[in-house]
Amino acid sequence: MKEKLTIIKVGGKIVEEEDSLRQLLTDFSAIPGAKILVHGGGRSATKIAAQLGVETKMIGGRRVTDRQMLDIVTMVYGGLVNKSVVARLQAQGVNALGLTGADMNVIRSHKRPVKDVDYGFVGDVDEVDGELLADLIRKGIVPVMAPLTHDGQGQLLNTNADTIAGETAKAMARFFDVTLMYCFEKKGVLRDANDDESVIPHINEAEFQRYVEDGTIQGGMIPKLENSFEALHAGVAKVVITLASAIDGTSGTIIEK
Amino acid sequence: MKEKLTIIKVGGKIVEEEDSLRQLLTDFSAIPGAKILVHGGGRSATKIAAQLGVETKMIGGRRVTDRQMLDIVTMVYGGLVNKSVVARLQAQGVNALGLTGADMNVIRSHKRPVKDVDYGFVGDVDEVDGELLADLIRKGIVPVMAPLTHDGQGQLLNTNADTIAGETAKAMARFFDVTLMYCFEKKGVLRDANDDESVIPHINEAEFQRYVEDGTIQGGMIPKLENSFEALHAGVAKVVITLASAIDGTSGTIIEK
Repeated sequence: MKEKLTIIKVGGKIVEEEDSLRQLLTDFSAIPGAKILVHGGGRSATKIAAQLGVETKMIGGRRVTDRQMLDIVTMVYGGLVNKSVVARLQAQGVNALGLTGADMNVIRSHKRPVKDVDYGFVGDVDEVDGELLADLIRKGIVPVMAPLTHDGQGQLLNTNADTIAGETAKAMARFFDVTLMYCFEKKGVLRDANDDESVIPHINEAEFQRYVEDGTIQGGMIPKLENSFEALHAGVAKVVITLASAIDGTSGTIIEK
Repeated sequence: MKEKLTIIKVGGKIVEEEDSLRQLLTDFSAIPGAKILVHGGGRSATKIAAQLGVETKMIGGRRVTDRQMLDIVTMVYGGLVNKSVVARLQAQGVNALGLTGADMNVIRSHKRPVKDVDYGFVGDVDEVDGELLADLIRKGIVPVMAPLTHDGQGQLLNTNADTIAGETAKAMARFFDVTLMYCFEKKGVLRDANDDESVIPHINEAEFQRYVEDGTIQGGMIPKLENSFEALHAGVAKVVITLASAIDGTSGTIIEK
């Protein structure tokens, strides 16, 4: 039987507010066994960009990343958010190691080709080095992954944190019994966006298609669920979308093949 | 006989200008065998701080680091400079891993006690985990170290890059035959600050004392040389202060016990 590995992805809002961050770090530290944390940081990036006089341009919920914005997300995701989380996890006895995809070449990507939209320096993931991560994890190290990758030619690329979590989960499925949890500020996938209690407890692919068609599921939740199904098909044991304060797995939406 | 390890410390000016950075990365990549890069980033931090409306306050060449400035150096040193260098080294076939002292608890420090001056969130190094670094290096990984450490209580601390290089060299002397090179924009320690050709080829401790007394050596060069002598006493084989473009060791000032 494979060892258990829990991969927690937390959205920007969680890591960017002191109360929710403190709670998250305590909860994450309490997860037994092997684990990986993947974080966002978009709200901080937008705030710092504004302070630097750089306008944030989003298309379909995705950040357009020109050279200036790439510098900003490199500072905020790779520096401010990542290193602050690492230092605070260390204080809780978690032997955290902050990583971008460039570090030890752990996630290689390519710049997204321009179709209708030029997203700029945005990366689509090619490969996650699961063996390297497994080796670190077996030494008791806890990777803390920032949403940045590289193309192997010297270029850093801004990369969606949900995708990093999903691709990492897939790469780790060879080595571990992987649970992937997407944590955010809602209790799960909601049937009614205005009713926080309307959590859908289980979603399979056929139901997902129906929910997308009837408009129940929309926006950023669509790629999150697509990542989830992909992960399940690639051997990930369990995918849950839930509240950040419920990473003990007692609530949320369970995604099923 | 111990394996050779070269530790290169480069000042801010080198990593912050494209031409000198490109040259450095090429030269660093060409160094055979085990190596570590330690970088600064002060000029970029000052620039970003100014853009964010935060005033940079230096006392005796050292940055006063209040909470806002700590966030800025965490972004710039740990994110922008560190990750850009890592991605570009990867493109040159160097398996770089960006680290602050918080990552894997590699450098523990304490907040500098307030005496005459309150430097704020500035760290004095307590311990470098040489065994961990040696283990990484033996796997072919090249640590790229940002001038940030942590206190183990969750606090990141701004830490002088020369000190990080010196303390790392000392910690590695148990495992390797260490050469420590302080690289900057001058050819070495100068006899006459206005004459770039007036390099002092060798300095021992007695000469250093005399040069300090007669004012030949002053400012930031004094702690750099103090770090150098400390490193030599702790078993580091060779310390050189030289031009960044001369890391092949053909010129510069050789520091001797």
